Amino acid sequence: MTIDAAAVAAGFDAEIKEAVAKGAHVKLVGLLANDDKEARMYANWTKKACERVGIAYELRECARLDLEEVVIELNADPTVHGILIYYPVFGGQMDDYIQNIVSIKKDVEGMNYRYRYALYHNERFIEPGKRCIVPCTPLACVKVIEHAGVYDRALPVGRQLHGKIVTVINRSEIVGRPLAAMLANDGALVYSVDVTGIMVFQAGKVPGTIKVTESTVERDDALRQSHVVVSGVPSAHFRVPTECLMPGVVCINFAPQSNFDKDGVDAIGTLCPAIGKVTIAMLQRNLLRLYDNFSSTDANGGAE
Amino acid sequence: MTIDAAAVAAGFDAEIKEAVAKGAHVKLVGLLANDDKEARMYANWTKKACERVGIAYELRECARLDLEEVVIELNADPTVHGILIYYPVFGGQMDDYIQNIVSIKKDVEGMNYRYRYALYHNERFIEPGKRCIVPCTPLACVKVIEHAGVYDRALPVGRQLHGKIVTVINRSEIVGRPLAAMLANDGALVYSVDVTGIMVFQAGKVPGTIKVTESTVERDDALRQSHVVVSGVPSAHFRVPTECLMPGVVCINFAPQSNFDKDGVDAIGTLCPAIGKVTIAMLQRNLLRLYDNFSSTDANGGAE
Repeated sequence: MTIDAAAVAAGFDAEIKEAVAKGAHVKLVGLLANDDKEARMYANWTKKACERVGIAYELRECARLDLEEVVIELNADPTVHGILIYYPVFGGQMDDYIQNIVSIKKDVEGMNYRYRYALYHNERFIEPGKRCIVPCTPLACVKVIEHAGVYDRALPVGRQLHGKIVTVINRSEIVGRPLAAMLANDGALVYSVDVTGIMVFQAGKVPGTIKVTESTVERDDALRQSHVVVSGVPSAHFRVPTECLMPGVVCINFAPQSNFDKDGVDAIGTLCPAIGKVTIAMLQRNLLRLYDNFSSTDANGGAE
Repeated sequence: MTIDAAAVAAGFDAEIKEAVAKGAHVKLVGLLANDDKEARMYANWTKKACERVGIAYELRECARLDLEEVVIELNADPTVHGILIYYPVFGGQMDDYIQNIVSIKKDVEGMNYRYRYALYHNERFIEPGKRCIVPCTPLACVKVIEHAGVYDRALPVGRQLHGKIVTVINRSEIVGRPLAAMLANDGALVYSVDVTGIMVFQAGKVPGTIKVTESTVERDDALRQSHVVVSGVPSAHFRVPTECLMPGVVCINFAPQSNFDKDGVDAIGTLCPAIGKVTIAMLQRNLLRLYDNFSSTDANGGAE
């Protein structure tokens, strides 16, 4: 079976269109400060997706050395509700610096340190009444997992993945690590795999906390136990071995290339081969949340 | 000629001993969460240097996955005035995350995003009356440059390097980039060199701002113009070409290996082959500043 990202995104698109129709005149600015072709494609794609639901989108291009100044200007511009930077710009640690320049009031990607801290400490509100922003790609993975029926709605919130095992292959700060934490926050036992080894993310003893431990489990043994496998290895050569997957498995690929053997997974479980459309819907949802939190007329009335 | 770091550090050591003798009972905690031998050597060396001037130093070792929790505990511990983490721990972006966990009240290395932002915007105070923390290694380089007599004390503060050209080979977020900004803040024209190219850091039109531009200058041409050359390339194979250095040049090496040909530089200028002792003095000075800012009985009285 295949999960089509468009089908998952459709419900969110309807919500977003409705919010815009009700008066949320929101604007997203994309900042392109590199000459990466994929970044430009993503920018064009974001633009189309925003226009389709009634969100204003402006692409600004600038030299990388002007980027910080442009971000500071946009932080202060009340007509702009979200800032999206297409990385990498400088590469390495300087890009982390830039991520923190983006105001928490405009950070649609949730990459400011304050949102990241909140995520790892399962703090749901950045200020009283203002819900946190969670990064778009891991949030999209969660929505696909929900769509696939893996969450048990009979259990209380925060426990709905109890008993479920998930392997996430990728532990970047952008996707893999926040995703592992979010799934553990929802009750799953998560094997977080990268080239340096495997960590286990799970609920801590104190409700609302998570516990992360080093693990000596072999990757393929982790896969054999997993109800869900999420992979984001940016390589044409990497494949999750189908023979290690359990019947009924839900597989999600967020790498630009396919990390799964489509026919193999189709035969035994469900594959979501690409999540980009859900990611964009989450970006728009984050934008609306920022608007509700910080710009709408009832921003101080506990919107959302 | 050779500049001995111990001689540069000596004056600061005396200041620090005096401050401690006058009642600044400060404590630094070093956190070792890797099994890097160099990190352990640095930890032992910090300990000895602290004990020599009367600063309490405690080394805590922990698993990397416990590090965040330990930092949060230490942030809340009123008997601890500074936290020093020996990196790399996880490597990559996760270490940036950890840097931001350290409270600005305990961040002796000045690597919290708020201090970094202040440095690049030449904001000298983190709160009214509380001077910012600047990272130790670039600060040590500045002190060596001062010791070598490059600053013109007849000029106003912020202009004392006016007319001076400096090449900094390394543009890491830990040393090279902050150093370039600090020297530009003091009026120098700085060529900032790394493998991706050369940038120029210099005073902006608005006093107190700096301007950074991409440059097409060749590295060796930058060297030929430079009154000061600072190099931190962690490779045994890299050498700054002596034939490109001007007579009277001041050279500073902060790499673990020597990036300069000692005899060659000695013949035409001045070499500071290692700055570790000054770096430790700056670490202690930062610790005292944190104490004055946030812990001393007159912390709200504008101590400095």
